[in-house]
Amino acid sequence: MGSTWGNNLKLSLFGESHGKGIGIVLDGLPPGVLLDLNHIRKQMQRRAPGRSGTSTTRKETDDFEIISGLFRSKTTGTPLCCLIKNENTRSEDYEKIHNLIRPGHADYTGYVKYKGFNDFRGGGHFSGRLTAPLVFAGAVAMQILLKKNICVGSHIAEISGIKDKLFDSIDLNNNLFHSLSKKEICTIDDESGVKMKEEIMLAKAMKDSVGGIIETAVINVPAGIGNPFFDSIESRISSMMFSVPAVKGIEFGSGFRLAEMKGSDSNDAFSISDGKVCTFTNHNGGIQGGISNGMPIIFRTVIKATPSIFKKQKTIDIESMKETEIEIHGRHDPCIVPRAVPVTEAAAALAILDILMGKDEI
Amino acid sequence: MGSTWGNNLKLSLFGESHGKGIGIVLDGLPPGVLLDLNHIRKQMQRRAPGRSGTSTTRKETDDFEIISGLFRSKTTGTPLCCLIKNENTRSEDYEKIHNLIRPGHADYTGYVKYKGFNDFRGGGHFSGRLTAPLVFAGAVAMQILLKKNICVGSHIAEISGIKDKLFDSIDLNNNLFHSLSKKEICTIDDESGVKMKEEIMLAKAMKDSVGGIIETAVINVPAGIGNPFFDSIESRISSMMFSVPAVKGIEFGSGFRLAEMKGSDSNDAFSISDGKVCTFTNHNGGIQGGISNGMPIIFRTVIKATPSIFKKQKTIDIESMKETEIEIHGRHDPCIVPRAVPVTEAAAALAILDILMGKDEI
Amino acid sequence: MGSTWGNNLKLSLFGESHGKGIGIVLDGLPPGVLLDLNHIRKQMQRRAPGRSGTSTTRKETDDFEIISGLFRSKTTGTPLCCLIKNENTRSEDYEKIHNLIRPGHADYTGYVKYKGFNDFRGGGHFSGRLTAPLVFAGAVAMQILLKKNICVGSHIAEISGIKDKLFDSIDLNNNLFHSLSKKEICTIDDESGVKMKEEIMLAKAMKDSVGGIIETAVINVPAGIGNPFFDSIESRISSMMFSVPAVKGIEFGSGFRLAEMKGSDSNDAFSISDGKVCTFTNHNGGIQGGISNGMPIIFRTVIKATPSIFKKQKTIDIESMKETEIEIHGRHDPCIVPRAVPVTEAAAALAILDILMGKDEI
Amino acid sequence: MGSTWGNNLKLSLFGESHGKGIGIVLDGLPPGVLLDLNHIRKQMQRRAPGRSGTSTTRKETDDFEIISGLFRSKTTGTPLCCLIKNENTRSEDYEKIHNLIRPGHADYTGYVKYKGFNDFRGGGHFSGRLTAPLVFAGAVAMQILLKKNICVGSHIAEISGIKDKLFDSIDLNNNLFHSLSKKEICTIDDESGVKMKEEIMLAKAMKDSVGGIIETAVINVPAGIGNPFFDSIESRISSMMFSVPAVKGIEFGSGFRLAEMKGSDSNDAFSISDGKVCTFTNHNGGIQGGISNGMPIIFRTVIKATPSIFKKQKTIDIESMKETEIEIHGRHDPCIVPRAVPVTEAAAALAILDILMGKDEI
Repeated sequence: MGSTWGNNLKLSLFGESHGKGIGIVLDGLPPGVLLDLNHIRKQMQRRAPGRSGTSTTRKETDDFEIISGLFRSKTTGTPLCCLIKNENTRSEDYEKIHNLIRPGHADYTGYVKYKGFNDFRGGGHFSGRLTAPLVFAGAVAMQILLKKNICVGSHIAEISGIKDKLFDSIDLNNNLFHSLSKKEICTIDDESGVKMKEEIMLAKAMKDSVGGIIETAVINVPAGIGNPFFDSIESRISSMMFSVPAVKGIEFGSGFRLAEMKGSDSNDAFSISDGKVCTFTNHNGGIQGGISNGMPIIFRTVIKATPSIFKKQKTIDIESMKETEIEIHGRHDPCIVPRAVPVTEAAAALAILDILMGKDEI
Repeated sequence: MGSTWGNNLKLSLFGESHGKGIGIVLDGLPPGVLLDLNHIRKQMQRRAPGRSGTSTTRKETDDFEIISGLFRSKTTGTPLCCLIKNENTRSEDYEKIHNLIRPGHADYTGYVKYKGFNDFRGGGHFSGRLTAPLVFAGAVAMQILLKKNICVGSHIAEISGIKDKLFDSIDLNNNLFHSLSKKEICTIDDESGVKMKEEIMLAKAMKDSVGGIIETAVINVPAGIGNPFFDSIESRISSMMFSVPAVKGIEFGSGFRLAEMKGSDSNDAFSISDGKVCTFTNHNGGIQGGISNGMPIIFRTVIKATPSIFKKQKTIDIESMKETEIEIHGRHDPCIVPRAVPVTEAAAALAILDILMGKDEI
Repeated sequence: MGSTWGNNLKLSLFGESHGKGIGIVLDGLPPGVLLDLNHIRKQMQRRAPGRSGTSTTRKETDDFEIISGLFRSKTTGTPLCCLIKNENTRSEDYEKIHNLIRPGHADYTGYVKYKGFNDFRGGGHFSGRLTAPLVFAGAVAMQILLKKNICVGSHIAEISGIKDKLFDSIDLNNNLFHSLSKKEICTIDDESGVKMKEEIMLAKAMKDSVGGIIETAVINVPAGIGNPFFDSIESRISSMMFSVPAVKGIEFGSGFRLAEMKGSDSNDAFSISDGKVCTFTNHNGGIQGGISNGMPIIFRTVIKATPSIFKKQKTIDIESMKETEIEIHGRHDPCIVPRAVPVTEAAAALAILDILMGKDEI
Repeated sequence: MGSTWGNNLKLSLFGESHGKGIGIVLDGLPPGVLLDLNHIRKQMQRRAPGRSGTSTTRKETDDFEIISGLFRSKTTGTPLCCLIKNENTRSEDYEKIHNLIRPGHADYTGYVKYKGFNDFRGGGHFSGRLTAPLVFAGAVAMQILLKKNICVGSHIAEISGIKDKLFDSIDLNNNLFHSLSKKEICTIDDESGVKMKEEIMLAKAMKDSVGGIIETAVINVPAGIGNPFFDSIESRISSMMFSVPAVKGIEFGSGFRLAEMKGSDSNDAFSISDGKVCTFTNHNGGIQGGISNGMPIIFRTVIKATPSIFKKQKTIDIESMKETEIEIHGRHDPCIVPRAVPVTEAAAALAILDILMGKDEI
């Protein structure tokens, strides 16, 4: 398995990059939610390829079709299926090289797991293209969360060593998230964004690619949501975030910096403000004991450099089991981070909605 | 919920720090496994408190009783229940202060989630003590994995800024893991261990605490294990690791360093050695597309500084909803990292065993 | 939720009777299975409406499209999505009466659960039409089971008081199942079939409908498959069978007749035949302690009479909350039992495959 | 697996008949529920052996110990673990015959599944004794349901051909359930109970055993609870009921009698009474489309005759793989039905509570 997720809102993801289509089924949505299809399209366009020099030139409209679960523009409460047809595929690029394992991709692991039967074209089911239905689902989740005043936003915290300000240094609100979402390189500090773009274009010129870090915040999550142990907020968000191809690390609050902090610093002392409990600092990223404390939930995910590069690479031929070299052609992103930003928002929204729906009440 | 985990091997964790006992049920173990109870005890003693100056003086034998699932020293295949009775509890320490929210703990979030009904003594169900049954379960999992030649080991990669060598710089094998497991401060480089201990004792003297990073490796996992997307190895391991109290971040392979690496570096080019596929480097930590590639699975988790410190801290009284101060007494670890090492091994072993049992075969 | 099922093979069912389409996602299929699309089509045609006087005149080709998970005619091992577009819908029949709750249907319960937002046309997601993707999925499962020599077959045991022979009185084999599958009224004893058809036509003439009982057998299931307690074979099969609309009861082996039998009769004494363990009788339907014993797994499900009848019925108007009467028009089956036969086979195959894939082995 | 259940309230059952103990973990209970331990004890005593001539003479107090999840007499919201120690076991009875497969038991299927490693003494994990923790858990569920005015009751509908009145012929309320619970043979019609007892004593005298049917009702379940398809109320209740050893069939509402009913009869026409929607009849057992309609949820389960009989039976020796005979000694129930009554109530309560906790709301 692997393509089904959720304790309360069940997701079922399907499709391959160069097959007939890709999509997702969402089971467990509340009924009667008026879906804003324009908002969904906007989120999907932020992820779609071919919008700028920093991304692949493969153009896809990513037009989605809602097959079920929507009636008179509102959710029915029964499973919502979204289908995105594949277009503009150039499978022949892959047919030629399909015995050559592309380094950094899932070509080898997929070959072993599926005994050579998986659809290898464009990465098949492993393709980053599968994040399109995730963004669709996340946009639906964001609309439901917004009714509870819960907002999700992300920015690029780092690309190839160039860093942006972090969320804990500024005031978080939906306007900020909205303005971030409109930027090509969505940084808080525009100057950092300019430098990041330069790094990306430089890597592109060198037939190489770069990675980065995305920071995500979820605000207005009420205190008391989540669980100790296996269904902790961190467990649920991380299980979802590591579903996103290329994510190799996640840290909450001050994350790995906590290794150098004293308890007296990292404890986030409590205070009361306007009759509400809050903490002076937020080194725990809004989560204690796996449960929300009402402060912003903040985490960072690291995205490795796009594996598809035009440089010649050492690899193997899986049929002959011999060492060889590969030169990848086709259309690829020199940096996937800008397009991954809406994906992290989607993943965060889905995780928080699933947790929120699991209130142990009768 | 939150205390039940597993796709193929189901864990059910129960108990509170100062209640009658704590324990775990493992459902789905293979039958006929001869359990080495001494190995289990050794792993549990590595986690047990009161063994050295770096840990709390609360002494517990952590004697476990196997209630079911073991017959004539072998697993029956039906649920194995392990019970650990609580002893040497000093609940009165907690009764006095139970309106005062301890910063950094789950006191506030637990209070909100459970509406004040949870057992607050010693953190109740949120207590780090609940990792004892996890270590029990992990030791069982390690014995089963060892039959497939799969070994798990950990070392302390950092405490309070003092760093050890990393696993990718040395040869990984079970002897190394075994020798690491015998050290009080289990570092590869003993000198680093001495300095780390000094940092811990310094923090203790200052009535404060320190955090750190643990690195874990699982070797000899066959290629082709795991899943794309939601049940990726990273998703499963992270969902388990974030169940361990105080863990706030996890990174696989080169992790957050990937943000500064080019694709040509991070791709892990393939080669063939002794007729087996392997990679020259292991920046992906043995996992591509959520599936094992046969290289060591390597990850690091950050553990925040122990929240219980003897310094006076600002906090609130949850009944009166007023700001106040708290001074924590009792027995606490100035650094939980050394005791967390076997916990990360247990968590890794449980995650890998669960994944391994989920082979999609009939 | 409700439309997601499976421990090892995950099903995700979607769609509404009069929406754009219906379908199913199967996650966890073994890779490399060559699918016989003709066999799938045949099974689906057995369920399809409009084939004979005993069923509705709504004609649907039930042409399915495989969106993903099939590559070069073989399963890829990644999610297989099947989409069936809706055609020949007459939604206006439903628009007129949608405030009038149809007795025997899920109109009222769906209205309450989904707060009036569910798609009411043709029963929406509750429609028996949703069994078409189940039959698709079941046919895939049957093909995989057949590789292990496991076969599934059903016959109509009773319609409106007219009874067929039962499976325990004859020799069970795949040829029998094959010949049964070709009959319009698939009874072992053809004479019973003729009488059943008369009963159906009589009910139709009276603007009424009739129910019946279907008996299903799964042969060659190896001994030792299944689980004690919650994942017993009976638990898994029944949870799947009660997913089929109109099923209101299930019994295994001698079922309700066991209430009048002595232990010395119902115990199924063991013997050895050709070196294999078997039982003289099969009152337990091939299952003991939730686990297969190698004998045929046999169960019967009762299907209530089609709720849509042309007779005038008492009911309520859900908007005005007043009592009223309803006269249902449109196209309906006077007896759904013949079309439900392949559905029970599909459900049995899916349950057995899911159980078989859950062998606790590593 | 097999011993873990629940979508919203997770149960984890453990233990063997002649091991150290048996028990259950309940994860997901609401916090703050004051548990009435006397009520729990009463329910468990109804199930306990040794109370009358119709049951085994093995006496067990079934004293339970709550290990966790209860603080100051109220549920904490964290996992509640109940442990029942085994006493008065006569394992030597089983040691002697453990190569001889007892007909009607899970001896053979357990042997195959667990490769001979399962604890065979007294049936091990398959023992009916494992229903004691289920009754404990069910009593907890009943107390929570009662706060919503939801009540569960059962009576013996048939033993060995002797029938009681059915629930649909009388008025259902908690007083009735309460008075039924106090009877040794809990029938509505006391005369039937007397005759049933005679049948049981007759079977006992003949060294044989008898089976029967139990009818269960759950009243005051609000309309709109449950799900279409795989998590239908029928699917959830049946998956739980078939967990109870010896249950071989279940029918809802008019069940198998629906095979002889016309749609105009079985449709349960709607009416309005006191401003509330109800149906004139209840042939659907309170469930339509898998969802409650507000009418009593009614179902019947058939319990096969106790497999342990003192008559000589044909069987096999599993080690020598030869046919032989077995004469079972020890202490056994000539009819398990009276003791199974509280088990069906427990199972119903657990299923309904789990469903109720799964309301798709945020």
